[in-house]
Amino acid sequence: MSKFAALLPPTFTRTIEAWLAEDIPSFDYGGFVVGDAPKTATLYCKSPGVLSGIPFFNEVFRQTGCSVTWDIEEGAEIVPQEGKVSVAKVHGPARRILLGERLALNILARCSGIASRARRLREVADRMAFLGVVAGTRKTTPGFRLVEKYGMMVGGADTHRMDLSTMVMLKDNHVWSTGSITKAVEAARGVAGFSIKIEVECQSIEEAFEAIDAGADVVMLDNFVPDDIRLAAVEVKTRGVAVGRQVLVEASGGITEETAHLYMLPGIDIISFGTMTQSVPHVDFSLKIDH
Amino acid sequence: MSKFAALLPPTFTRTIEAWLAEDIPSFDYGGFVVGDAPKTATLYCKSPGVLSGIPFFNEVFRQTGCSVTWDIEEGAEIVPQEGKVSVAKVHGPARRILLGERLALNILARCSGIASRARRLREVADRMAFLGVVAGTRKTTPGFRLVEKYGMMVGGADTHRMDLSTMVMLKDNHVWSTGSITKAVEAARGVAGFSIKIEVECQSIEEAFEAIDAGADVVMLDNFVPDDIRLAAVEVKTRGVAVGRQVLVEASGGITEETAHLYMLPGIDIISFGTMTQSVPHVDFSLKIDH
Amino acid sequence: MSKFAALLPPTFTRTIEAWLAEDIPSFDYGGFVVGDAPKTATLYCKSPGVLSGIPFFNEVFRQTGCSVTWDIEEGAEIVPQEGKVSVAKVHGPARRILLGERLALNILARCSGIASRARRLREVADRMAFLGVVAGTRKTTPGFRLVEKYGMMVGGADTHRMDLSTMVMLKDNHVWSTGSITKAVEAARGVAGFSIKIEVECQSIEEAFEAIDAGADVVMLDNFVPDDIRLAAVEVKTRGVAVGRQVLVEASGGITEETAHLYMLPGIDIISFGTMTQSVPHVDFSLKIDH
Amino acid sequence: MSKFAALLPPTFTRTIEAWLAEDIPSFDYGGFVVGDAPKTATLYCKSPGVLSGIPFFNEVFRQTGCSVTWDIEEGAEIVPQEGKVSVAKVHGPARRILLGERLALNILARCSGIASRARRLREVADRMAFLGVVAGTRKTTPGFRLVEKYGMMVGGADTHRMDLSTMVMLKDNHVWSTGSITKAVEAARGVAGFSIKIEVECQSIEEAFEAIDAGADVVMLDNFVPDDIRLAAVEVKTRGVAVGRQVLVEASGGITEETAHLYMLPGIDIISFGTMTQSVPHVDFSLKIDH
Amino acid sequence: MSKFAALLPPTFTRTIEAWLAEDIPSFDYGGFVVGDAPKTATLYCKSPGVLSGIPFFNEVFRQTGCSVTWDIEEGAEIVPQEGKVSVAKVHGPARRILLGERLALNILARCSGIASRARRLREVADRMAFLGVVAGTRKTTPGFRLVEKYGMMVGGADTHRMDLSTMVMLKDNHVWSTGSITKAVEAARGVAGFSIKIEVECQSIEEAFEAIDAGADVVMLDNFVPDDIRLAAVEVKTRGVAVGRQVLVEASGGITEETAHLYMLPGIDIISFGTMTQSVPHVDFSLKIDH
Amino acid sequence: MSKFAALLPPTFTRTIEAWLAEDIPSFDYGGFVVGDAPKTATLYCKSPGVLSGIPFFNEVFRQTGCSVTWDIEEGAEIVPQEGKVSVAKVHGPARRILLGERLALNILARCSGIASRARRLREVADRMAFLGVVAGTRKTTPGFRLVEKYGMMVGGADTHRMDLSTMVMLKDNHVWSTGSITKAVEAARGVAGFSIKIEVECQSIEEAFEAIDAGADVVMLDNFVPDDIRLAAVEVKTRGVAVGRQVLVEASGGITEETAHLYMLPGIDIISFGTMTQSVPHVDFSLKIDH
Repeated sequence: MSKFAALLPPTFTRTIEAWLAEDIPSFDYGGFVVGDAPKTATLYCKSPGVLSGIPFFNEVFRQTGCSVTWDIEEGAEIVPQEGKVSVAKVHGPARRILLGERLALNILARCSGIASRARRLREVADRMAFLGVVAGTRKTTPGFRLVEKYGMMVGGADTHRMDLSTMVMLKDNHVWSTGSITKAVEAARGVAGFSIKIEVECQSIEEAFEAIDAGADVVMLDNFVPDDIRLAAVEVKTRGVAVGRQVLVEASGGITEETAHLYMLPGIDIISFGTMTQSVPHVDFSLKIDH
Repeated sequence: MSKFAALLPPTFTRTIEAWLAEDIPSFDYGGFVVGDAPKTATLYCKSPGVLSGIPFFNEVFRQTGCSVTWDIEEGAEIVPQEGKVSVAKVHGPARRILLGERLALNILARCSGIASRARRLREVADRMAFLGVVAGTRKTTPGFRLVEKYGMMVGGADTHRMDLSTMVMLKDNHVWSTGSITKAVEAARGVAGFSIKIEVECQSIEEAFEAIDAGADVVMLDNFVPDDIRLAAVEVKTRGVAVGRQVLVEASGGITEETAHLYMLPGIDIISFGTMTQSVPHVDFSLKIDH
Repeated sequence: MSKFAALLPPTFTRTIEAWLAEDIPSFDYGGFVVGDAPKTATLYCKSPGVLSGIPFFNEVFRQTGCSVTWDIEEGAEIVPQEGKVSVAKVHGPARRILLGERLALNILARCSGIASRARRLREVADRMAFLGVVAGTRKTTPGFRLVEKYGMMVGGADTHRMDLSTMVMLKDNHVWSTGSITKAVEAARGVAGFSIKIEVECQSIEEAFEAIDAGADVVMLDNFVPDDIRLAAVEVKTRGVAVGRQVLVEASGGITEETAHLYMLPGIDIISFGTMTQSVPHVDFSLKIDH
Repeated sequence: MSKFAALLPPTFTRTIEAWLAEDIPSFDYGGFVVGDAPKTATLYCKSPGVLSGIPFFNEVFRQTGCSVTWDIEEGAEIVPQEGKVSVAKVHGPARRILLGERLALNILARCSGIASRARRLREVADRMAFLGVVAGTRKTTPGFRLVEKYGMMVGGADTHRMDLSTMVMLKDNHVWSTGSITKAVEAARGVAGFSIKIEVECQSIEEAFEAIDAGADVVMLDNFVPDDIRLAAVEVKTRGVAVGRQVLVEASGGITEETAHLYMLPGIDIISFGTMTQSVPHVDFSLKIDH
Repeated sequence: MSKFAALLPPTFTRTIEAWLAEDIPSFDYGGFVVGDAPKTATLYCKSPGVLSGIPFFNEVFRQTGCSVTWDIEEGAEIVPQEGKVSVAKVHGPARRILLGERLALNILARCSGIASRARRLREVADRMAFLGVVAGTRKTTPGFRLVEKYGMMVGGADTHRMDLSTMVMLKDNHVWSTGSITKAVEAARGVAGFSIKIEVECQSIEEAFEAIDAGADVVMLDNFVPDDIRLAAVEVKTRGVAVGRQVLVEASGGITEETAHLYMLPGIDIISFGTMTQSVPHVDFSLKIDH
Repeated sequence: MSKFAALLPPTFTRTIEAWLAEDIPSFDYGGFVVGDAPKTATLYCKSPGVLSGIPFFNEVFRQTGCSVTWDIEEGAEIVPQEGKVSVAKVHGPARRILLGERLALNILARCSGIASRARRLREVADRMAFLGVVAGTRKTTPGFRLVEKYGMMVGGADTHRMDLSTMVMLKDNHVWSTGSITKAVEAARGVAGFSIKIEVECQSIEEAFEAIDAGADVVMLDNFVPDDIRLAAVEVKTRGVAVGRQVLVEASGGITEETAHLYMLPGIDIISFGTMTQSVPHVDFSLKIDH
């Protein structure tokens, strides 16, 4: 079992239940055909990637009355030999294996795809000896965020904020409606209190300075080109030190796997990627009943 | 409003409600900051693709108390000029626009991505003067299938079966457990009755013949190379005619946008693509409050 | 356990949970009185009929913490001797037996009633050497359809379409709104795709011919009198053969157990009965704690 | 609108939503075909009975975006002239009328059937100048009890207890497990308190006396033949007077519409019928779009 | 296990599931830190009170995968020695103990607080040799009523009516809208039937007499001062006897622990206290992992 | 409308729906009695306190079909004159006012009680010229936390962390299981990432120093007596400055309204109170229909 399984809320079992219901709204005709003879099925991986999604895969099959044993551990790099590699075994009545098959594979294919992308980005960071984190965003598939954020973690990325109720992110829209960055940060602090961080999206060094002075915990330098952000990051960090706080600096905006290394600079603490969860290649898994 | 909106079940509003809850589990601190001043926001598209997801996008904003007017209609090809094009306007209180923003964009980005891929595959078919359909599969994101199947339709693809309770698909696993294709089809027909179609996945012409004789409505020729399937498809269709039934033939298994044209042959009625919903590039949208 | 139990979706346990909640919204005062002493209760049947509903009955008691052993198997004809016959034993703490008692009996009484009616209709068909199926409709009790369709199957009837998302049925209302049967069938095929059957309700041979030519899979001859339908059925089937497709013919409209045999004619594939689930006598069961 | 609509809990709208979902789990292909042209449909009744279910019928169509106007009021006797009579009009977009059609009819057919049976039983009582009530039981369709109990009220019957959390009913099982009727009543009163009535099912006069002395509010004389119950009822009522309480007497056990009058005796306050909701003929309604 | 656990509906497990979800909407970071090492934790009580809530506490930990053993039984008076006393042990993986900790304590603290207040009021009644009951009201915390009513029972109080669907309570508002107490009682009886009690809130003896004559089961003397209620209670009881019914009398309105004894008079059957659940001190519990 | 209403998640309407269902599981007999005549009811307050809960109160009545107009605004101090003061008017059909009455009052009574306590604590802080915040805890009523945290904000307190998925709090249990504060903080940071704050509960200055060095954002000095915490707070803050971070200091553990001022010292940023939500007196409201 993945160590990250300890992070999952008790209610994720209900979500998986709802996903099973999506695939079997009324009768399972195929299940009737195959019956309940005990079987073992092998999970194969047919494309390279980082394995991720074990606790979800296990739970799908626990709910359908099967059990799973794994040959490869969560977070491992899978390298298919001659086209495929055995990853796990699923044990249970034939129809119950097939009941969970498609859902379990759909989870694994996408979760591993995201973990793989996270790993690739982390590897770039390691090669660049970058001390900051690579992070995702909230650009996730509706209803599937928990799996996708989990995949980021397995791959080695920071999940960034989970939702609107955790860290506050103040963007231009927020600022315009309150009149200034200072007022927006104060309004946010007034309700979010001491326990929630506040990040401010800034278009310029001046905005960043205002955000820091107003009490922002994180400053996002939005859509800066590498040359500009190099200097800006250092200035921003310095301003934080000047006011006695460790302000974090995030680079964001259209950064891809190809351009990521250009942002891995001193003073940058976080680089976030919408592509951590968008346009992500899946990892190819299949499940075959042994016979 | 898209004509396909008429397909949506009344309960999809509840699903969207659950997706909103995923993004705002407790307090919306940012919403407090921006307040309720009436605003208009512009939806921009920044990458080419087929617009898809209007009824979901509208419903997200209806639930947050906003309204949407569209400049481009569902299913249209979007061609951003100089980097972006205005697609729609969202009207409502500032905080309510931001409340639905991320969810609405996440839906649109992926739904349009799938519609775009479906459109590309359909265009290949049209260029090949292929009379059959290009179709998706059940390789969808858990909980998000309705949107993804909808996107296929908007793009011009066949959704293939929705779930295990609509068409019956008998694969090797089903056949092994019952002893023969004939027995499997009979067992399926016994419970699925006259109203549900039965498809059989076949590895050879012989299996296809057995399936047809047993009463299969659709025969899938699985993982045939183009040269083999060319002949097989015609033979299978002919066998159907011989027994007085119009048997449909599906080609499936690792077919991609690049190889699709090789399968667009006489006798093939359906070509299905796992890549209709996997490894799909998203279409890039953003929402900016006018000011 | 019934072989048909393999058809049930994993989520039917949640439905049963909701039914228990309906009967015990807050405190179970009677349960407090009887306490948790281990008991065995006998399920008696007091009227003749076909036993149906075992998997639901079992699940009710599994949820309340009891177990059930059966003397009679699903689908068997029950013939009470001297007023009653023992059908099963329920084992568990006294209060937990009583907790599930009423719900379990309510399911069994109605499910068996429907299975009995289905069996009677199937027997008529067998006596008439009718090769087609007797089928139900969607005239089921709201929220209880799964049990009722299941009962049909146990009795030997075809369930007909499960819901609006499986087979498409085009009635006069659909035809009027599109202008012609041809247009309605084409519109339906455009969205339902290859995997969903299309049935057209026809008032005349001419309409049936149009439906077949447009691609209908099933033609319903609605409210035809026996003399008319005898000829029509054959003509319709012949037209199907002429266009190379096996078109199914359904007779429907006010057909009862008494008149059913008049419709069991060559060329008729399906006879559907609203009375499969309406005005159905229940089978009388009771549960008594042994002492 | 029925005056009884004021009884319905606000949450019954959620139940109707779930029933709609049962009928349209994914796409509504037929709805796509008919489209959104505004239409009016007529609700016809084709068999005699008591109209019941208006608030549920209205709510189904409110949820699908239609409105209903009624020609006949809740509780009225419907007498079809020449085969049918117009009962109501449904106004709305064509596809939205069809979306709710089957569910709305299924509710009305069964609810009216139950109201009709209740009315027939009440009429027998009136003819017999019986001062007591005719009542139903908890032998209802799982998940559908609210509608069925409502139908009883519209027909003129007493709903009897709603569920295990309202009145306490102590049967032989309860008594055996506590040792005596006296102990069972005391245990029940200890938790149910002053606000919940306690009824005791009695097999003899002696048991009835014990129940009354222990504080029972209602005594059920179970499976007494008419000759026995005539005397027993009076004795039981007298005992109640003797202890200064108005004890109610219920006759129950296999009483049908045919035998009901035999139990309509002085001293009997309640006659309960399992057949109020079991083996009930439906009332035949249909909905036709005007054109 | 508490004997009162037998009163709980099977669905209370779902409620506890929802409460867990409230505390862990997405990831459980702390749980990741502590991991799954097996641990035992001790439940301490640090303030005096009546222990109440065992079945809920047990269920919380059952759901998180732990078990509980109790040193003190439900309903016992806890008297902390030197500041605290050990009440129970929780066994399970470290992170799973912490997962349920706060919820379980929150339940216990408030449920025991209510049981303690109920016990104190019952003790006053016992000292006064009062034969009636002390009762709660519906002034409970929304969503938490089951626990609070349970706590009343454990403490020795009557729960009073559970909700609007059990006993009918007719207040001045009900009376005004129907014209008279008589009409209001008749309207209520017409729908509530024989199985539901009817209570009428009365401002004077005259109103009480009218209520009794109309058939009320319980009469509430609302906001009477002790001197007035002393006489009124006897007169009301006498009137009940006169009409041959045992009418119950409830005293209500601003009665506190301090003034309760003034209302413990002959003829009073029930004294109800809003303060049974409002302004209630909690009992102080904590959970410490042994090490 | 309260400005804090902008904080509420869209799903809180579903919670209120569930609370209504708790109070009306089946029929609303009283509602039948009063009927639908349009009425106005006055909300009175009968005890002093801070008004809080307007958006919840409004939503209850919106759901039952009524509207509310307020005389006093959210957060205002209510000072009843001669026993009571009019606070708001509720307009709607009589039965619909009564339908929401008890739920709406129950919310307001407790929410205002908490706001009042928060205000009292904030006032102490203001009198002491304390620059830090007074804060609540997670010691809330299960299922009711959103209302209680909201009440804190209206009263002027900091809500502290909302749940286990927002700020991480590492207590002794977490530390023991990982071996050291340093390891625990590192493990937490590894999964919580940059966007979530980490607080460490410390029993000594040494622990606090270790927590700061490990990267804790907040240090809780747990159960320090005032004399000890005075020095500790300053040392801890100084250490934070030394490492270039603004570390927050929380005082916690048995602090009450009476002792709060002793902890309002330089260097203390947060004082948290379990009594913000436990043992809280309610504010007394009632609703009377005008006539």
